[in-house]
Amino acid sequence: MRKLRMGMVGGGIGSFIGDVHRKAASIDGMIELVCGAFSSTPEKSKRSGEALFLPQERCYGSFEEMIDEEKKRPDGDRMDFVSIVTPNHMHFKPAKMALENGFPVVCDKPMTLTVEEAEELKIIVEKTGLIFALTHNYPGAPMVKQARAMIQHGDLGNIRKVVVQYHQGWLATAVEKTGQKQASWRVDPSKSGIGGALGDIGTHAENLVEFITDLQIEEIAVDLGRFGEGRVLDDDGNMIMRFENGAKGTMSFSQIATGEENNLVIRVYGEKGSLEWHQENPNELITRWLDQPKKIFTPNGNDLYPEALAASRIPSGHPEGYLEAFANVYRNFATHLFAELKGKKIERPDYPTVEDGLRGVKFIHAAVESDKNNSAWTKI
Amino acid sequence: MRKLRMGMVGGGIGSFIGDVHRKAASIDGMIELVCGAFSSTPEKSKRSGEALFLPQERCYGSFEEMIDEEKKRPDGDRMDFVSIVTPNHMHFKPAKMALENGFPVVCDKPMTLTVEEAEELKIIVEKTGLIFALTHNYPGAPMVKQARAMIQHGDLGNIRKVVVQYHQGWLATAVEKTGQKQASWRVDPSKSGIGGALGDIGTHAENLVEFITDLQIEEIAVDLGRFGEGRVLDDDGNMIMRFENGAKGTMSFSQIATGEENNLVIRVYGEKGSLEWHQENPNELITRWLDQPKKIFTPNGNDLYPEALAASRIPSGHPEGYLEAFANVYRNFATHLFAELKGKKIERPDYPTVEDGLRGVKFIHAAVESDKNNSAWTKI
Amino acid sequence: MRKLRMGMVGGGIGSFIGDVHRKAASIDGMIELVCGAFSSTPEKSKRSGEALFLPQERCYGSFEEMIDEEKKRPDGDRMDFVSIVTPNHMHFKPAKMALENGFPVVCDKPMTLTVEEAEELKIIVEKTGLIFALTHNYPGAPMVKQARAMIQHGDLGNIRKVVVQYHQGWLATAVEKTGQKQASWRVDPSKSGIGGALGDIGTHAENLVEFITDLQIEEIAVDLGRFGEGRVLDDDGNMIMRFENGAKGTMSFSQIATGEENNLVIRVYGEKGSLEWHQENPNELITRWLDQPKKIFTPNGNDLYPEALAASRIPSGHPEGYLEAFANVYRNFATHLFAELKGKKIERPDYPTVEDGLRGVKFIHAAVESDKNNSAWTKI
Amino acid sequence: MRKLRMGMVGGGIGSFIGDVHRKAASIDGMIELVCGAFSSTPEKSKRSGEALFLPQERCYGSFEEMIDEEKKRPDGDRMDFVSIVTPNHMHFKPAKMALENGFPVVCDKPMTLTVEEAEELKIIVEKTGLIFALTHNYPGAPMVKQARAMIQHGDLGNIRKVVVQYHQGWLATAVEKTGQKQASWRVDPSKSGIGGALGDIGTHAENLVEFITDLQIEEIAVDLGRFGEGRVLDDDGNMIMRFENGAKGTMSFSQIATGEENNLVIRVYGEKGSLEWHQENPNELITRWLDQPKKIFTPNGNDLYPEALAASRIPSGHPEGYLEAFANVYRNFATHLFAELKGKKIERPDYPTVEDGLRGVKFIHAAVESDKNNSAWTKI
Repeated sequence: MRKLRMGMVGGGIGSFIGDVHRKAASIDGMIELVCGAFSSTPEKSKRSGEALFLPQERCYGSFEEMIDEEKKRPDGDRMDFVSIVTPNHMHFKPAKMALENGFPVVCDKPMTLTVEEAEELKIIVEKTGLIFALTHNYPGAPMVKQARAMIQHGDLGNIRKVVVQYHQGWLATAVEKTGQKQASWRVDPSKSGIGGALGDIGTHAENLVEFITDLQIEEIAVDLGRFGEGRVLDDDGNMIMRFENGAKGTMSFSQIATGEENNLVIRVYGEKGSLEWHQENPNELITRWLDQPKKIFTPNGNDLYPEALAASRIPSGHPEGYLEAFANVYRNFATHLFAELKGKKIERPDYPTVEDGLRGVKFIHAAVESDKNNSAWTKI
Repeated sequence: MRKLRMGMVGGGIGSFIGDVHRKAASIDGMIELVCGAFSSTPEKSKRSGEALFLPQERCYGSFEEMIDEEKKRPDGDRMDFVSIVTPNHMHFKPAKMALENGFPVVCDKPMTLTVEEAEELKIIVEKTGLIFALTHNYPGAPMVKQARAMIQHGDLGNIRKVVVQYHQGWLATAVEKTGQKQASWRVDPSKSGIGGALGDIGTHAENLVEFITDLQIEEIAVDLGRFGEGRVLDDDGNMIMRFENGAKGTMSFSQIATGEENNLVIRVYGEKGSLEWHQENPNELITRWLDQPKKIFTPNGNDLYPEALAASRIPSGHPEGYLEAFANVYRNFATHLFAELKGKKIERPDYPTVEDGLRGVKFIHAAVESDKNNSAWTKI
Repeated sequence: MRKLRMGMVGGGIGSFIGDVHRKAASIDGMIELVCGAFSSTPEKSKRSGEALFLPQERCYGSFEEMIDEEKKRPDGDRMDFVSIVTPNHMHFKPAKMALENGFPVVCDKPMTLTVEEAEELKIIVEKTGLIFALTHNYPGAPMVKQARAMIQHGDLGNIRKVVVQYHQGWLATAVEKTGQKQASWRVDPSKSGIGGALGDIGTHAENLVEFITDLQIEEIAVDLGRFGEGRVLDDDGNMIMRFENGAKGTMSFSQIATGEENNLVIRVYGEKGSLEWHQENPNELITRWLDQPKKIFTPNGNDLYPEALAASRIPSGHPEGYLEAFANVYRNFATHLFAELKGKKIERPDYPTVEDGLRGVKFIHAAVESDKNNSAWTKI
Repeated sequence: MRKLRMGMVGGGIGSFIGDVHRKAASIDGMIELVCGAFSSTPEKSKRSGEALFLPQERCYGSFEEMIDEEKKRPDGDRMDFVSIVTPNHMHFKPAKMALENGFPVVCDKPMTLTVEEAEELKIIVEKTGLIFALTHNYPGAPMVKQARAMIQHGDLGNIRKVVVQYHQGWLATAVEKTGQKQASWRVDPSKSGIGGALGDIGTHAENLVEFITDLQIEEIAVDLGRFGEGRVLDDDGNMIMRFENGAKGTMSFSQIATGEENNLVIRVYGEKGSLEWHQENPNELITRWLDQPKKIFTPNGNDLYPEALAASRIPSGHPEGYLEAFANVYRNFATHLFAELKGKKIERPDYPTVEDGLRGVKFIHAAVESDKNNSAWTKI
């Protein structure tokens, strides 16, 4: 056997998320980067590839070139899958082309700009039968796995209430006007789509809620904020939610929450118990109960469900973080791909799929619609 | 000089909040309990008074009797003010009668059942010129004073976002059916009014938000939950908020948040900085900044505003809690009353007043109306 | 019945601990202050008494005068007990005189300057049969009661290790040279005795360890620090401990731990479980287990022992603090005294006694001796 | 350029620390594993290598074979350095042989069993001029870098006191008798050396203290515990410390601290400020000050020193953990090795060196000696 070979679209020097993908893909020693279309020009792409110890001939000037050229390479030499780490507007096309040329895909979120694109991608994935993973990383965290498993096993009873917040402060001032690359594309509708903070972090919150509770948000009433001077896209959101089972809740997300770093917190309340998870201290799952004291679960700690144990690498008390959760998406994707290469089938993939991607895009569109209609309840 | 003399309405044996009022009133050695109409029958009232070391003749069978009889006592012997600690439906009448007979009032919240009563009370307070304090206790906490002072001094800049939650779990099951006294009246509209958790804790959240931000909530869109079997009043609420200055936010309150004790948390985000306060660990005020590390203020700690210093009793690191915050309402009320007795005027009372009471009752009614109109935005 | 009448020695205006004693004594409505020898001169004493609403004739110029005069008052009018809140060197004499004149005593710690005085006091207490309470307040905290109860019930198994720290920073600079009253007497051996930080806070740590574990520290090896310029008494201490049952541990205390407020933390490890308590956030007791997740107990929360429940006043989630813990000493003392007045006997007093006082003074002397002998192991 | 090629000694399937080394080495994309002597037999070694996607011919049966064979390979194909991840008794020989054959070394701690070996290794390193990194990983954590930088810049002033604890509970029961592989060798003096918990985690504490404070511990007085039935090596330690500059402190370490996971905490107090760091929540550095509120630094957060910024990979609020800190040792080692390959010199390596290794071994021996002499002060 050999490692799986990854080709990357986007993620040139200075990219935040490209670097995260590469680190996440490499931690477990199952994947190696073999080629990339890292930037919009061949020169930049080659410079990025050089810093990554790649041969010049596999640093391509465009994703089209990469897919075409890699396809020509012999079996066992060409890339095994494509990882797409570009801004939002550049997800759909490379994903579509990769799949249509036989390459499984790992794709960053939100999956596409429009619901139509998302639905088309879903159809392509189904038609090709290829593996497609969406990199919502938070479901990869061991304590998030534990949270979901507890709810699936009925430990909390019927879910009644969910409160989620995702607060960042890095757009509290107009950093996009200072040339900050991460900010510029995120506030630009041609690159981000119709959602600003909504697409960037609101979708993480939505995905986390639905992943942990195993419930769908049915409808939402939304009030978006545009606080940064001159911004056309939202940089803040406030929302009430109704779930398919009658549960209710609130969601708050913001990128103008001054001083906040990456403060994603979820609280889920059931009839028998409740849980709370903080992304910034991800190695604790706080649970509360009708008639027992508060109990705090930890990765590889006592009394965990197998799903949580499987997501931890090192002994309890040795903190794992953002990269390790992200790496779990890659590890589980790679495990699935290895299994397929050996002719095995995996029933239920342990990573977000094209379905989650479609859900996220629908969520963005429902939120924008509700906001336009003075916060009227809107179905997702 | 002598201590101020307090007469109490409600608060018989087994009452939670009556006992809290007595402890809060006594900590600072400025007030002594001299009489009470503690219960609905003279016998029960006398039994309660006995346990409080009161003479039998000053344990009255009704608030009317108490006010009538105390009024007849000579100057310097009769009670100086009335403290009302009954369930919600029994606030208005004794407050009105006390004021109309010349007695200042300390009254529990929510102030009245209806907006009309609240407005009438406000007129009576203005007409009589008597002191009226509403016992929202959380504004008494030193770190809440610091929060308000920081915002008033502009430290956070213009406020953009507020997120508040008040989660309790004690009504997660139908404890009212087990004869639990605290629960029974709270789920009964004839005693609680039209708000359940809304009146009991939602009003605390509303008051805290407006106290800290020094801003009014302009309109709200509300989705109330009634999860407990057979409940007619809300036991859960989810809300988005718009403020007079354009700020936005979310509010969540619940008494079915299984396992939660008294988890009131507020986060306020301004252009320059933000703050976070947790009632369950009240001796920290967490602040975050554009370009400085997170700073945590503590009672009697470094760099506080005078308002916060004035609200602390003991050296930093020696935790004060719920009772001490509550006691600050009484202490500041007593200070005001002493000043008046000496013929001095206090410009701006440092405790919630009849205005806050009216605001709270309007909030309850706006929330119920929004909920009935499928969460339509409703002005307070 | 009537409230118990307290006479106070020390605690004039500006005193920290006198004010604490008065608040603690008043919270539960069982005790009223009726007289005092608050300061070293009659004038100052009267001024202090006036601020406390006391009649001039019961503000005495010395504890001798107070005891003599109060004794002459008729039954039911004279003070019922004496509370001693002076600096260390002024504990022994008033305690002795009060007891010898038939007055029960509440006395601040450390009990006396010398072991001889402590032993004499113990004999007097036994001879007179009068109640004597020492105000170590931390054993009054609900979660400390729970900790002790858990160990007494064997929940943690045999105790193997104890780690305690008591860190303050207020003497990090030479504040005694700025006229700071609290600092001046504490660094002065004629008022503090042979221990500085050792007597002031080291004894709290020692008392807490022995209270929670129900074990005696057998011997200690101690290295004291004197970091403040010109200090003759210790302001810092580092210690290893051996217990009667073979357990081992470390103790660190300091008043030069810059920036620390009142950071008393204890960790106790048994064969089956362990616990951790932080004074600055006293409403959590963290417990860890061989095969269960971490559990956090809270006052009036789930699964507590009766001893912990008895020490809480208000519902769970409503934080109690330093004053309430302190008040538990007074409440339990008062309950004991009421019982005696009614002719009942209480088997095991729920507050620190003269025995604890003697232990503390022996601890101070053993620590100083070990330090002099280059940290040689020294029996307490 | 190409990645650096790593050969590994130890770390076969089931090894905890071998896997950690591989993940840590791979995160930053600078190092690839090319060969290994993973186990004591060629068969096991090949099985381990296969799971790591290595060719059979580079899975060696012994470190001697690996070094001999790799040396024969052509330039640019042979391994560039050796990583040693075996139990303690197997560090010295492979390290010595690797260096003597021209291979730089990364070696786990404690470096050797005896002081003599450690001194010999130091001489070999100096003689060969080859790079030698010791994998104390905690100095790699961004907030530990910040702590050291703050002290080096004088932010805390002169250091007066250090309190460190390293508490684990996994040896609270005699797991070594259940066949637990990690436990068996650690309690066996022939594999661990004369220190048990002392060598395994005490040395981490010692290293962390000296790294952060930039001070040497001068002498220690130590009381070791052997609580596990039948254990000859310590599983617990209690210690007081004196530093070269007059600072004092305590150290506690334990592997029988029931329920603790990996609770390493350090507190350092200077004249002007102090700091506190918890390994289990490594992304906060708590600092306290004479006249400012508590400030909490975070990786890539506001106001950091360059040393801390250089140790963080991803934006603030995205937690990094144990593996990333460990990876910093490898990254900095690799950066150094790349520099040397390019003919550049690095003045001060940013990872623990053979000097730190020698210090650690001396610390173990001083502690055991002090313990034997009834805790007499012993120079390191």
